[in-house]
Amino acid sequence: MNSVGVVTPQRATFDTPITLQSGATLPGFELVYETYGELNAERSNAVLVCHALSGSHHVAGTYAGQPKNVGWWDNLVGPGKPLDTNRFFVVGVNNLGGCYGSTGPMSRNPATGRPYGADFPVVTVEDWVVAQARLADHLGIVSWAAVVGGSVGGMQALEWTLQYPSRVRHALVIASTPKLTAQNIAFNEVARQAILSDPDFHGGHFYEHGAVPARGLRLARMLGHITYLSSNQMAEKFGRELRHGKLSYGYDTDFQVESYLRYQGDKFTGFFDANTYLITTKALDYFDPARDYGGDLKAALARATAGFFVASFTTDWRFLPERSRELVYALLHNGRDVTYAEIDCDAGHDSFLLDDAHYHADVAAYLDRIET
Amino acid sequence: MNSVGVVTPQRATFDTPITLQSGATLPGFELVYETYGELNAERSNAVLVCHALSGSHHVAGTYAGQPKNVGWWDNLVGPGKPLDTNRFFVVGVNNLGGCYGSTGPMSRNPATGRPYGADFPVVTVEDWVVAQARLADHLGIVSWAAVVGGSVGGMQALEWTLQYPSRVRHALVIASTPKLTAQNIAFNEVARQAILSDPDFHGGHFYEHGAVPARGLRLARMLGHITYLSSNQMAEKFGRELRHGKLSYGYDTDFQVESYLRYQGDKFTGFFDANTYLITTKALDYFDPARDYGGDLKAALARATAGFFVASFTTDWRFLPERSRELVYALLHNGRDVTYAEIDCDAGHDSFLLDDAHYHADVAAYLDRIET
Repeated sequence: MNSVGVVTPQRATFDTPITLQSGATLPGFELVYETYGELNAERSNAVLVCHALSGSHHVAGTYAGQPKNVGWWDNLVGPGKPLDTNRFFVVGVNNLGGCYGSTGPMSRNPATGRPYGADFPVVTVEDWVVAQARLADHLGIVSWAAVVGGSVGGMQALEWTLQYPSRVRHALVIASTPKLTAQNIAFNEVARQAILSDPDFHGGHFYEHGAVPARGLRLARMLGHITYLSSNQMAEKFGRELRHGKLSYGYDTDFQVESYLRYQGDKFTGFFDANTYLITTKALDYFDPARDYGGDLKAALARATAGFFVASFTTDWRFLPERSRELVYALLHNGRDVTYAEIDCDAGHDSFLLDDAHYHADVAAYLDRIET
Repeated sequence: MNSVGVVTPQRATFDTPITLQSGATLPGFELVYETYGELNAERSNAVLVCHALSGSHHVAGTYAGQPKNVGWWDNLVGPGKPLDTNRFFVVGVNNLGGCYGSTGPMSRNPATGRPYGADFPVVTVEDWVVAQARLADHLGIVSWAAVVGGSVGGMQALEWTLQYPSRVRHALVIASTPKLTAQNIAFNEVARQAILSDPDFHGGHFYEHGAVPARGLRLARMLGHITYLSSNQMAEKFGRELRHGKLSYGYDTDFQVESYLRYQGDKFTGFFDANTYLITTKALDYFDPARDYGGDLKAALARATAGFFVASFTTDWRFLPERSRELVYALLHNGRDVTYAEIDCDAGHDSFLLDDAHYHADVAAYLDRIET
C-alpha cells in the first residue's frame, strides 16, 4: 500500500575523469540510480536519498516480477509517506565504489581489462558527494530541495551542505555523527581485518581466483549487526532462548541470537562485495569535516547555508545522541535553522530504518514545511 | 614494591575421574597453582583467586629470572595490599580446560596419546568450581575465608557459594554478572566463529597439523579488547590520532586505535590456545544459576550462606552495574550480608584489573573485616 510500485533502475555514464581525495583518478564512471515521483517544471522538488553501508539505489518500490524485493526505505518514501512522492521527485543512487551496479571494485578496470578488485581506490564521503553532484547535473537538478540520509547516509547529507552549499536547501541528517569515535573505528577495523586476513581474499583480487572471502565478510556482518541493535532490543528479541531447548556442550547453535547472527552473516556474503565493504568502512572512518579546522566543528560548518533536520535515537550506542547534539550545537552557533529530534526508540542504530510513529511524524512535519 | 616476590608454580594431580556437566568424563586431571602467604594453623585464612578469560594461576609476584613476568592481579595481592598476604594464604589456580599448564585441550588425551584438541569437553563454571574444590581438598582447606574473582572469575566466586555453601565464608564478585545478556553472547559468538572458521583451526586438531588458528584468535582478541574498554576511555587514549600523521587511503594502519588492537591481537596469538578460548566463552555463555529455577535468581541464590562483596564499574558496558545490582537484590532478598560498591572508574570492564584508589580501598575494607 502507498508504494511507488514497480520501478526500473537507470544508469548514468560520466566520461570526464574524476580525481578522488586520495589523489587517484578514475577515467570515468557509471552510477546506477532510481527515481520516484515527478520532477516539477521548476526542477525545484528533487530530493536525494543517500544510502548507508549495505544500502543501494533501490530505496522504494519493487522490481518487475520481484514483489518481495522492496526498497530499503520503502516505509519512508512513497505516495502519502513522510517523504511524499506525490510532492517530491526522489532520487536514490548507488555510491561510487559500490557493488550494486555503480562503478566499483567489481567493475572492469580499463587499464587492465580485469576487475579493479583491490586496485579500486579508497573513496571518501566527499568523493561520493562529488559523484552525486555529477548525477544532479545529468538530471538537470541545480539545487536539491533536500538531501536525506541515515548513518553514513547522513554524513553525505551533511557533506552536501559543506561542499555545495548553494545546491542543497535542506539536509536531513539521521542517526549520524560528524565523525567516528575511536570505538567506532575499532569495530570497523576488526571487520576489515576479518576480510583482509581471509585466505580467500587474495589481496583483494579474489574475483580472478573464483573465490569470495565469505568467512571474513560473514564475521564483519555478524559484528556489524551487534552494533546496529541495542542491548535491550537484543535481550527482548532473543534473550537467552535456546535454539534446541537444551545446551549442546559444543559449538553448534545454542542460543537464538547465535542463529540470528549466523543467518545474517551467511545471507550477506551472498550479495555484498568484500572490497566495497572495506572501502565503505574507510569512508566512515575518514569522515571528519572538522579535520581541516583543527577539530573545530563550528568553524567547519560555517560554510553551510541549508536548513537542517537532525534526528538521533536514544538507544543508538553506535552513534550516540550526544554526537548529533554536537552537530546541532555547531550549526546553531553558525545561526543555522535546525530542527532536532531525539527519538525514544528501542531499536538502537537501526531505528532509522523503522517506521517508528514519532520519528516518521517528525520527518513528515519537516518535509511538509519545505517549499518547492 | 610490596611484591610477594619470586614465586614457583606447583602442580596437583587428581587420579579420580571427574564427570563434567556435559556428561563427559575425564579419567583424571592436573591443576597448576601458586600460593602466596602462609596457611595458618587453623587453615582458616585461605583465599582463592579465580581468573577471567585470559588470566592464569600467576596472580602475583614474578618468576625467577623473569622480573617482568608479573602476576595479573599483583596490584591487589601482596604484603600490605588489599588482599594482604601477610594475613591471608592466597591461592591462584589455572582452570580446567586452560592453557597455562592445567589439563586442557593442549594436554595429552590418554585415550589417543595425542593432544585432546577439539575432543576436550566443554567445561562450565560449575565444573571449574568442582575442580577447584579438589584442589582445596589437596591443600587441606575445608573452608575458604574468601573466594575472589573479577568478570568470569566473579562467576566462579558466586558459584562456590551455591555449590559448596559450607566451604566459602565470603565471596567477592567483581565486575561480573549472574548471567550473560544476548549481546554478551553475540560478541562471544563472533569470536568463536572467527576461530572456528579459520582454515588453520582444522576442526580443533591444529596441533597435529603444526598450525595455529592465529587469524581467528587475533580477531577474537581484537574484538574482546573493544568490549573491555569504555568508549570514553578509548576516545581519551586514542581519539582519532593518526599513526603516521596523514590518511593512507589504504588498509595499513591509519589510526592509533587500529595499531593498538592489532598489537594486542598479534601478541595474544603467541601465548593463548584457541580451544581454551572457545571453551571459556562457552562457560561464560552457559553460566546462569537461575536456569534451573525458572529464571528466578532469588530462588537460585537461597542456598548461599556466604557474606558478599559485590563491585561494579560505572563505565563497564560489558557487564553493566545493573547486572551487579540484580545480584545484590537477589542476595538481599535472601537476607544475606551484602556490601555493594558501584565505582566511578573510566576504564570500562577492565577497571577491575586497575589499582583505582576507591576500588582498592573498598576491597581492603571488606577483607580487613573478615575473621580468620
